[in-house]
Parts: sequence; structure tokens; C-alpha cells
Amino acid sequence: MSEASNQPRSTFYNNARTSIGSNLSRQRTLSSSSIDPYEDPVLGLERVSQSQTIRRRPRRSENPEAADGRSELEEDHALSSKFESLNYEICENQLYRDAEFKSGHQLNLKRIQLNRWIACFLIGIFTALAGVVIDILVSTSANFKFNYVLQTLVDKCDDGEAIAGGGCMWLVQLAWMAYNCSMVFIAACLVIFWAPIAAGSGIPQIKCFLNGIHIPEVVHLKTLVVKVFGVSAAVAGGLCAGKEGPMIHSGGAIGAGISQGKLHKKLDPGFFREFRNDREKRDFVSAGAAAGVAAAFGAPIGGVLFAIEEGASFWNQALTWRMFFSAMIASFTLNATLTYYFKQDGLLSWNGLANFGVFEDKKYTIWEIPLFLLIGVIGGCTGALFNSLNYRISEFRKKFVSNKWQRLMEALLVAAVSAFTGFVTLFVVDDCVPLGLGENRTEGLNRLYCKKGEYSAVANLFFANPEESVKSLLHSPIGSFKPTTLLIFAIEYFVLSVWTFGLAVPSGVFIPALLTGAAWGRLFGLGVEWLFPNVAGMDPGKYALMGAAAQLGGVVRMTISLTAILLEATKDMTFGLPIMLVLMMAKWVGDFLSDGLYDLCIELSEVPLLGWNAPKMARNITAGTVMRSDILAMEKRVRVGRVMEYLTATSHHAFPVVDRIDESDISRLPDYGRLEGYILRTQLVALLKKRAYRHEWEEDLVGKMMSEQDFIEIDSDEVLPEVGDEDENAWMDLSPYMHPHPHRVPLNASLPFIYRLFRGLGLRYLMVVNEDNRLRGIITRKDVARFRNTKGFALRELYITDHQY
Amino acid sequence: MSEASNQPRSTFYNNARTSIGSNLSRQRTLSSSSIDPYEDPVLGLERVSQSQTIRRRPRRSENPEAADGRSELEEDHALSSKFESLNYEICENQLYRDAEFKSGHQLNLKRIQLNRWIACFLIGIFTALAGVVIDILVSTSANFKFNYVLQTLVDKCDDGEAIAGGGCMWLVQLAWMAYNCSMVFIAACLVIFWAPIAAGSGIPQIKCFLNGIHIPEVVHLKTLVVKVFGVSAAVAGGLCAGKEGPMIHSGGAIGAGISQGKLHKKLDPGFFREFRNDREKRDFVSAGAAAGVAAAFGAPIGGVLFAIEEGASFWNQALTWRMFFSAMIASFTLNATLTYYFKQDGLLSWNGLANFGVFEDKKYTIWEIPLFLLIGVIGGCTGALFNSLNYRISEFRKKFVSNKWQRLMEALLVAAVSAFTGFVTLFVVDDCVPLGLGENRTEGLNRLYCKKGEYSAVANLFFANPEESVKSLLHSPIGSFKPTTLLIFAIEYFVLSVWTFGLAVPSGVFIPALLTGAAWGRLFGLGVEWLFPNVAGMDPGKYALMGAAAQLGGVVRMTISLTAILLEATKDMTFGLPIMLVLMMAKWVGDFLSDGLYDLCIELSEVPLLGWNAPKMARNITAGTVMRSDILAMEKRVRVGRVMEYLTATSHHAFPVVDRIDESDISRLPDYGRLEGYILRTQLVALLKKRAYRHEWEEDLVGKMMSEQDFIEIDSDEVLPEVGDEDENAWMDLSPYMHPHPHRVPLNASLPFIYRLFRGLGLRYLMVVNEDNRLRGIITRKDVARFRNTKGFALRELYITDHQY
Repeated sequence: MSEASNQPRSTFYNNARTSIGSNLSRQRTLSSSSIDPYEDPVLGLERVSQSQTIRRRPRRSENPEAADGRSELEEDHALSSKFESLNYEICENQLYRDAEFKSGHQLNLKRIQLNRWIACFLIGIFTALAGVVIDILVSTSANFKFNYVLQTLVDKCDDGEAIAGGGCMWLVQLAWMAYNCSMVFIAACLVIFWAPIAAGSGIPQIKCFLNGIHIPEVVHLKTLVVKVFGVSAAVAGGLCAGKEGPMIHSGGAIGAGISQGKLHKKLDPGFFREFRNDREKRDFVSAGAAAGVAAAFGAPIGGVLFAIEEGASFWNQALTWRMFFSAMIASFTLNATLTYYFKQDGLLSWNGLANFGVFEDKKYTIWEIPLFLLIGVIGGCTGALFNSLNYRISEFRKKFVSNKWQRLMEALLVAAVSAFTGFVTLFVVDDCVPLGLGENRTEGLNRLYCKKGEYSAVANLFFANPEESVKSLLHSPIGSFKPTTLLIFAIEYFVLSVWTFGLAVPSGVFIPALLTGAAWGRLFGLGVEWLFPNVAGMDPGKYALMGAAAQLGGVVRMTISLTAILLEATKDMTFGLPIMLVLMMAKWVGDFLSDGLYDLCIELSEVPLLGWNAPKMARNITAGTVMRSDILAMEKRVRVGRVMEYLTATSHHAFPVVDRIDESDISRLPDYGRLEGYILRTQLVALLKKRAYRHEWEEDLVGKMMSEQDFIEIDSDEVLPEVGDEDENAWMDLSPYMHPHPHRVPLNASLPFIYRLFRGLGLRYLMVVNEDNRLRGIITRKDVARFRNTKGFALRELYITDHQY
Repeated sequence: MSEASNQPRSTFYNNARTSIGSNLSRQRTLSSSSIDPYEDPVLGLERVSQSQTIRRRPRRSENPEAADGRSELEEDHALSSKFESLNYEICENQLYRDAEFKSGHQLNLKRIQLNRWIACFLIGIFTALAGVVIDILVSTSANFKFNYVLQTLVDKCDDGEAIAGGGCMWLVQLAWMAYNCSMVFIAACLVIFWAPIAAGSGIPQIKCFLNGIHIPEVVHLKTLVVKVFGVSAAVAGGLCAGKEGPMIHSGGAIGAGISQGKLHKKLDPGFFREFRNDREKRDFVSAGAAAGVAAAFGAPIGGVLFAIEEGASFWNQALTWRMFFSAMIASFTLNATLTYYFKQDGLLSWNGLANFGVFEDKKYTIWEIPLFLLIGVIGGCTGALFNSLNYRISEFRKKFVSNKWQRLMEALLVAAVSAFTGFVTLFVVDDCVPLGLGENRTEGLNRLYCKKGEYSAVANLFFANPEESVKSLLHSPIGSFKPTTLLIFAIEYFVLSVWTFGLAVPSGVFIPALLTGAAWGRLFGLGVEWLFPNVAGMDPGKYALMGAAAQLGGVVRMTISLTAILLEATKDMTFGLPIMLVLMMAKWVGDFLSDGLYDLCIELSEVPLLGWNAPKMARNITAGTVMRSDILAMEKRVRVGRVMEYLTATSHHAFPVVDRIDESDISRLPDYGRLEGYILRTQLVALLKKRAYRHEWEEDLVGKMMSEQDFIEIDSDEVLPEVGDEDENAWMDLSPYMHPHPHRVPLNASLPFIYRLFRGLGLRYLMVVNEDNRLRGIITRKDVARFRNTKGFALRELYITDHQY
């Protein structure tokens, strides 16, 4: 908004000011403004922000030009200003209070209660169906690859005797690589050109969403579609990628989609209108995430624990039950549908996408515990190595692979290299095993590389479905895999999965980590067997399980939910204790060496996440330091033109309401009066839209102008309604619409105290008042998130940067 | 304190008042007081409480004389004033803030972090050992009973042929009953004469403690001792009692004991002094409870979920990890110790006290799901029946079995009746089964009632260890139990366990409910088999499992934690989904019919528990209505005599601090100034003890008089230190010690808003201020807990009663 257009408003504003029966009619200069579009929500008009009285704090990066180089910022990581916060607070205004007096309100509460269960039921069903679609697509593609591409070629080459190799092998390899690359091409195109947010695992994004950060498009329909089809293509394309992380993200998106009762802005049948706010949406997204885990691993308890441990920051029992219900329904639907599809009627044996088979009659003894702990230590180290390597690759990517075409090429390159690595290994490592010793799922390839009656253990690892490979490492008898095969496979797969995670395709890290870990775990088991040849009951399979747990634990650093997930996925409780020990050990060792993968992702994208605990060493940082005092407040009775001025000139999402605004004697900032509430931008827009203002003051009318319905679904990015010149002098009464008792702290409140308020109640705004309850500043979620602890418990303060990727 | 002794204090108080440089020297009448000893914490001196301006609200029962009759109060249940709240808030005073500037503070933080883990490790170990003690005592007693008492008698009667019965049977029966009664006598005496709080399951008490209510002695050493030995005796005495609930309570007590680093006031080696506050203690109690579940059922995940679902109201991730760690250690220790004790070295097969055996090769089909749901419905109904019958019995007990000797007699009666019922059933129901069909654990009795080569299925149910009976119902092949046996057993055991729960012995409800449910579940399974004789794979054992889950779920109404516990106890994941469905159904049906057992217990003892969610239909109830305005506040600089007067005359646990206190023009209550903080009774006592006051005002000295250590372990019941007359005029400066920025709400804040603050932050006090930040009232936990919803979402307001049992 230019200064010119602002001028008339400020004039009538001054007129208006004097016409109220107040004794304050000093001259005001609060009009001219030139606004930074990436401004923080509560930073304001230029006059306010330029005020000399505000102590300069390292809120924003001092030289945004240098942000491209990133090198000087690497030390003190920044927070991006582009991520808005979600608002979980109920606006308890007069309309909200009056709703209780309506007849049928109790009935309405019951209806909402029931609807929550219905929504959770639907979330469970649809999340499971997304899982079913992924599973069927992947398995169809694998069938096609093995039965048509491979078999046809091999048949063509087969001259009756053993296939000699040479040219035919290269032909197979090329066809295989071409197929894989085309699949990955589809996945990468979907992500790069349609929904970039759908790249990667999606777990960090869901974690941020549940923490209260609005990441654009993260739970949109298009993200869901790209996620489902993209991950199917990526896995079908032979990348070292899991479909479990994306399943969790898909669940979250389904949770958001169903609870909002509409697929798209244009397709709105009007279901579940009562859930169209951030608070309800967050609950349903966590239910969706739990359902996603349940569908991915057949682990409903694990899903709920996941949502609690990693996600749901604000948590209660009723929500847990609904999450549990969703997870249960998802698990059951997936099970029933896949059992029916794969024609194993009635047995309900398809517990999840990842199903690691049952450990039967396997025990462990006390003397194996130290060995398991050692595996945990190794897992912590390799996990930390994975994370720091991946972090470096991601930084490299940010700098040098930023272009869309470059990212597409990189994805194709990884696909080609993955397939090529497999074939080279197959060629170099001769590990042909008699049929019947383990399972064989790579028939065509065996004929290429092995004698009749034998199959290739390497092909079984590299080219089978990764979930099947894990199963085979866990359950095959001793002798199914040579140590060299395991070693080479573990290293190659580790490197490939480090490279793959973060590519522009939807891909999870669970299965690659499990597979790598199972390989070196089995190797470890073979070593143990070699060292103690006389011990009965030795089985490398249980070491493979421990290795898998250790590697995954070392990468993602979850403990309790991961234990539950692994136990549920193996459908067995015997190894509960060792798995827990291994995960705990992997977490401790890993945490000592690096951050968890998801935390690194979040750090890299500069999201202002609020951690679990208030920062330490921050007792002496008070609200006065944390707050921004350059605020814009309103009075309860305000001219329409004034409101328009505020809305046009700033991008603030909320405005405090005070009883009066005076000129300050000591500061260029206005001296605000007593805090009376705050009003949201969306509410103001709704008021303007409905023309809820009057030229003459009529006490009765004003409150009745709006209904609760009018405030739903106003987007804060919405274009402001046009207000004619004749209306600019009209009066608006904010008191029935504002939140009349916002949370407030005095100036001397400490940062941990404030942190607990934000964290415990899911706040977005906290008002700071002086000893007379006069407004002195405002604290937003981001202001609090700036304060972090280093590992040594020292406090550091992050910048907020406008730099965007 | 009599009025006479109060008089001089009020005189010097008036002197003191005028000597401060304030311009307010009106005459004050705030002195005379006759205090109700059961007064609520923030109700005050008579003058304040008699004020006519306070609207009479149904805070306390209008006619306490009628409370004995209870009949008119039954409709509007009351809350007892005897339960104090715990204070989870950190007092962020100057001392706390200054601690950060000390060198070595960061190191200290790390040490505390480490100590938390050490404490959790010890909690795990000791909880497991408590479990081991219980298990060994019970099994020793059972061995003694079977091998000596029974065998000797039977041998004596045995005349070479089959034992004809008659006299010998009665002899056995009498000896058996005498043994059982003597065991129950021990248990009941321990409880009645030493630690009455140790009666029952202990889960409701732990739930209340974690909710923030101080129930006297609930986590004391003596309670622990009585719980451990009492429950061993009760179970050994053949009562329908489980040892699992008491294990959870024992775990909580161990958690409290270890974290406080002392066994008793007199036995204090000074460990873990940093944990000696309510907040840390609560965390360790929840870790202990999780460890208790882990030890009881071999279910560490279930334990953590239990602590989350039923207990830990204020929850965070770091705490979950530690709970998990404790649970894991407990599970492992119990396993290793019992494996060693029962000489099954190396296999770690003793997963928990209750171990229900592995379901091998058992599957279920889709068409069984509706049957399972039906079982859930039945469980919900029988569970609700259990609860309402038990509730009536408890009410009856309160009225008519209040005397200690009566309670002892009742316990003995139940013990005698339980044993007698078993023998009668054994005599009436002829269910002798060939040996080898199921397991046989009641050898001596078989010889009495059955032919050679057969054993009595009834004896197996009634007289074996209940956990073994559950196992046998779950795993015995078809034909092990006759339908009539199951029916009669289920009904008898149901009635007995309804009667037993609530007796003056430590006894849980888990195992009795599981056993009853397993019996009728197995009966249901036999019915299904009879209806569909041609279906292969039928097995009554899985219906027994579902019945057990349904009955327990219908009684206690836990869902997610119970699912995890049952899955971990059966060491199998196959039946995960059906168990969840059954529990969900049992909960829904049960909730429709009655409250959960633990909630009824809590309601009956009138504990002011804060539920998970804010009450509905309470939007228009504001802080002004909820608060008590009859408060006693202090000024920051206060005379020692004034403090003594406040402490002696009231039992308040906290006093708000305001900047000045004026005489009000409109009310007999004083007009308090701006809120500056609040100070705890314990802090005032500590200040008096250390004589932290000065006759002459010295700015520098005052703050340095006390260290943080001086405030630890001051009990609020502590006897006030004597203050000489010469010190009564001395000055005390509260500002370095008070909490300087307590949570506050304006007068118009709504009840749900306040509720969320209490619930989300674990508050005990909330200050209410007017628009000028002047103190207008205080809201305590109890004031909030008074508001409850009925099932139809209507709001009801409870009385707070002084009536004590």
C-alpha cells in the first residue's frame, strides 16, 4: 500500500478519534507505512518498527544478502520467517459464550462427539486404502518386472543350457535400469513439478505440523496423491526407499482432508464444518498419523505411541482413544483388503505393509544381552554416521542441486546407480545357494547367475521387495547368506540409502535402515557363531533383528514407539526386552554423536519447532526481553477505515485490543492502555465482508450482526473486501468478537515459564503486560522458539531470517 | 489458637502498620479468629469468611450434621476438604534465578540429569524385587498348603482305596479354611492397624497422586511394606484378589521412596536432595507405577501406556523415556531373578508375575469378529454390573462396617466363605477329567474327589494359583472343563470378587476379573463350538482370552494400556486386533451403564480429581464465580508478628503478595493492591526458622540470608518455630523468596479456560486480578474440581464437605 492511498485514511482516523467521547485527542502519526512482505506476524508499520527505543536484538539476520553464501550463518542456525504458526487457542468471545444458551446446544455437543468418532473411522478406512493402493501398485510393478521384462529377455537368451552370460546379462541389466529409471522419473516429476512438499519421508513435516507450525500444503489433497503414487513409483523403481514414512504422511493428510469434510475449496459438500479450525485439524492429523503407522507396520499400538512420542504435543486421553480407534480400523481394513486381494481369505494374515514374519521357538539367554548391547552401540554409531553424511549431502543439495532439472537428473542418476550396483555385486560376488535353504523370489535372475537348483542370495537381497529381504535376513536358516555377501550388501545399501534420503521423490528411511541393519546384524550373528561354535540354539536371525532395530534406532532416535512397532511387526513379544535395550543404547550413543535424522531435517529447513522442554540456563531471560514491543493494537470501538489501514499495511495475524491508546511521552511507540483482548485478522476480514459496522452507534444492533458460522473458513491470505469511501468512517465494535481474556504474563516472567505456557497450552500469542495490566508487548511462538540449548546446556539465540529456499 | 493469645499480635500489627512509610493507617480489625481446623487452604480468618458481600455458593454442605445420613447428599456427591493438592509449580524466586549465575550450575544440571536415570534404574530394580518377594511368598505358601497341610491330612485319611469322603473331607476343608483365614488375618491386621491406605488395589490412589492430590501416606515406606506383605498374605489366603494392582501401588511407593533418597525422616543419608519436591516426586512415582505394571505383567510398554493413560497428567517425552527405562529394568530384573530362583537358568522365561502363556498356531477368521464384539458387549454389561454392585457394597461398608474389628471380621468371613464355596462346588459339581488333558496342580484334592488317573477341573480352578487358573482356561484343550463347571465357577467367582474388592486387605481386581471373564469366555467358546460343530480350528481358549479382556475392560475401562498389557502378557500379537475391538466395545457399553471401577472408588472417597477435559456447558462460568474472594494476602515487607499471626490462625498453604492493602469502602474485605507474587506457607516457616528478619531495614543483607537448601524439606504441617516477643516487630522481606510472576487470569476468564491452565500446567493456585491487575481472588485446584459434567453434558457443582471417614 502506498503512502498516497494511506493519507486520507489517516485524516479520517484523526477525525474519528476526536469524535469519540474520549479526552485523548493528541495528534497521531501512525499512518505512513511501507511493509516488508516477509514481515513477521506481529511486526508492524514502519513507524513502529523504526522506533529507536527498541533494543536491537538478533531477531533477523543482519545481512540478508550474505544468506546465499550461508557460510557465516552455519554457526548460528537461523529460523525461517516463512513458517507461520497454527492457532490452537479457542477464541472465547461473546458469540462462543452465547452458543451455550441456544436450545439444542447439548445435543450439538453430542453430535460433534459422534462426528469425531465417525471422522476417525473414515480416517482409518481411507488411510488403509492408501496403503492398499501403494502395496498393490508396488507388487504389480514387481510382477511385471519379473514376469515380463526379465522373463522374456532371459527366455530369449536361454539356449537350453546354462546361460553363459556376456551380452545377455548386459541386455537384462539395461532393460532393468531403464524400467527403474522410468519409474523414478514418474515419481520425481510428480514431486518436482506438482507437489515439492511430498518429497522425502514426510515424518518431519507431520511432526512440525503437530508441533503447531503451518507448513504450506503439507496436508493437502495434491500432496497426498503425489505421496501415494510417488512412493509407489519410487519403490517400484528400485530405490533404497521405504513406503512407511510416506504412509504416515499420507495418513496425516487423509486425517486433515476428512476432518475438513472437503477435498478442495471448490469441492465442498459441507461435512464436518465444526472441525474447520486448527485445533480440531491437529487432532485429526495425529489420528491419521497413528493410522498411517498402523497400516504401514500392522502396529496400532506403535502408531499411537508414535503419535504421542513424535507428534502430538498437546495431548489428552480422549484423543488417544480416537487415535487408537483410527489405528485399529486402519490395521483391520488393510489386513482384510490385502488378504482378500491376495486370496488368502479369512485368515487376516496381512498385518501391515511391512510384515517381518513370526519368530517361532526362538529364545535368548542372559549371556547374549551384552552382545545385544554391543549391537546397540554399533547401531548408534552407524546411525549417527548416516545422519551426518546425509546432512552434508542435503546441504550440498541445497547449494548445488537447487534447479528443478538438476533434481530430476539426480533422482534418475540414483536410480541408475542403485540398479547398476546390484548387478555389479551380483556379478562379482558369487553366492549361489541351494534352493530350499531360504526362500527364492528372484527366479529369472537365478537362471542368469546360478546353476540349476541354486539361487542367488545376492539377487534375493538386492532385487526382491525390501520388506521381503528383511524377512529373509531375519528368518533364513544359517548358511543362507555368505559373510562377504552380507558385508558388501550392508555397505552398498548404507551408502545408497544415505544418498537416496532427501532426493526429490517420496521415500522413507525405515525400511532401508532396517535392511542395512539386518544385514550387518546377521553378519554379527555369523561372527558370534564362529566365535562360539559349541553353543546350541545359535541363530543369526535374532542378531539380524537386533541389528535392524539398532540401525533404525540410531537413525531416527525413537525408542518406545519403535519398540512397539518392531514388536508388532514381528508379531512376537519374546524379544521385547532385548529390542528395548538395543534401541536405548543406540539412542544414547547416537545422541552423543549427532542429532536424529528428523531433527536434522527440521533444523535444515529452519522451522521454528518448540522442543519438549523449556531451554535451560534461561531463568534470567524475562518476558521483557523475549517480547516484541513494536506492536499494533486497536481499541474496542474502531473506525472501519482504521481497520482497513491496519489490514492493508501489515500482514499481522492478530491485533491486541486495549482500552485506549495514548501518545507516549518517553517513546515514539504509542502508550497502550489496559489489555482487553485480541482479535484475529481473519475475524476482522469476516467483519468487513459482512459489513458488520454502523454509521450511527446503536448499542443493540452490533452484537447481532454476525453468527459463529460467518467466521469459519476465512483464510488469512484472503483478499480484503472493498470498502467504499462512505463506509470508512463507520464504527466497528470488536468487543463481541475478540477473545476477551487472552493469556498474559507480567514483564518479569521468565522464559521457561513462558515456554511452559506455550508448550502446555499450544498458544500462538502471549500478551505481556506491566504491573497495571497495560499492554507492553506480545510474544509469538517464533520468539520463544528462537531460544535453544546447545548440548552443553548453554543457551543460544537463533536469528529469524527472511531467506527462502 | 485462642482469641486471647491473638490479641497482642494484632496490637503490634497495628503499630507496625503505621510505622511503614505508607499513607494508609486506618484502623484494622483483621485480628480475631476462630478457625475451623478442616478449613480449605485459602479460606481465612473469621472476619474474612463472614463477610456479607460474598455470594453464598454451594461450596460446603449446608448442614454438616446431615452428612452422616448421606442420603440427601447422594444425589449431589461431595468433595472432601481433607485432600490437599500437590504443588507442581516451580517457585521462580530470586534464589532460583541466581542459582544460574553460580559457577558449576551447568555441571549441576548434568548431574541432576544423570541422577534421574540412576534413580529410575534403582526404581526398576527395587520394584522388581518387591514383585519377586510377593511371588516367592505366595508360591511358598501354596507349596506349604498343598504339600504339608493337605497332603498330610489326605495321607492320614487314605486307607489304600479310593477315599470315600465324609469326615475326612470336612477335616481337609476345615484345615484349609483355617489356614486361609489365618493368612487373611495377617493381611487384614497389617492394613487395619498399621496402614489403612494400603487396602485395595492402590491404582485409584496412584491415579489421584499423579493427578496432583496429596493423599496422606499413599507413597510412604510403611504403606509399601504393608502392601507387599499384605497382598502376599491375601493371595495366599485364597481370596479372589490379584497381586497386580498392589504391585503398581508398590512401584509408585518405591518411586517416591527412592527419589527422595531416604527411607524415613530419621533415616536420611541425603541422596537425591534435588528431587525433594512435589514435581520431581510425581515424575518418579509415575516411573514407579510403570515399573510396577512391567513387573506384574512382564509388560514394559503396557506399563508406560498405563502411566500415560491412567496417571501422568502432565507429561513429556523425557519422562516417558525414563519411565520406559524403569519399566524395562523392572521387567528384566524380575525375569532374571525368578528364572534363577525357580532354576530355569539362562532362558529368561519368567516374564512377569502374571504370565498367561503363549498362544501358538492359533488364528482367527473374519467371521469370528462379530462374536468377539458380542463378547465385548457382554463384558461391558458384566463389568458395569460388577462396578455398581461393588459400589453399593462399598457404600454399605462405609455406613455399617466402619469399626476396625468389624472390618477384620468381614475380611475373615470373606476368606472363610471363599474357601467354603470352593469346597461346596467341588462336592456338588462332578467334573473329573482324565489326567493329561489339561495340567493338574491340585494333586491332594484330586485324590479326595476323583478316581485315580483323573483330576478335578473344579479344584484346578478354585484352588490353584489364580494366574495358573487363567492360563489353564486359556490353553487347555477342548473338553478340559465342562460347561456347567465354567458357568458355576464364573458366577461364584464373580460374586466373591465383587465382595472381596474393597475389603481391608491389599487386593487387586485384575486377576479376578480376568479369571471370571476367562471362565465365561470359555463357556461362550464352547457354545460357539456347539453351534458350529463343523468349523475347523475352533478353540475355546481364544474365546476365554477375549472374555478375560472383555470382563477386565468392562470393569476398569482402560483401552490402550490394557491392550498392550494383555498382548505383552500373552507374548503374542496375533490377537491384537480382536483384543482391541473387545476392549473398545466393553468400554463403550460399560460407560453407557456405569462409571469405571477406579472412578467410582475415587468418587466414593470424594477426592477432588481433575478429569482430562474441561467441563462442558461452562463457558459462561467466569473466574469471578469460581474464585474465592475471601483471601488473605501479604505485603512484600511484613512484620514477623503479622506472619506468625497468619500462620497460626490459618492453615493456608500459600499467601498472595500484593503491593498494598487498603480498607475497602464497599466491602468488609480488604481492598488488595496489585498482585506481586505469592509465598508458600513452607517458605514462611523456613524464613522464621532461619530467623531471616531484621530489626533495622538493611537493603543488602536481607536477600543473602537464605539459600535454596534452607527451603527444602520444610513440611507444611511442621510446628511453627517460637518467635520471641522482641522479634515480633522485626521486618521480613518476602520479595527474594516469593514466586514473582504467578499465573493470573482476569475476572472474565471462563471456567474451561481456567481448567486448561490447571490441567496443562499442573497448577495449584491461580490468581484472579481485575483490569488494573489488582488481586480480587484466588482459585485453587479444588475450586475447579467442583465442576463436573453429568453424562448428558449438563454441568453440576459439587459441595466441599468437611465430613471425614
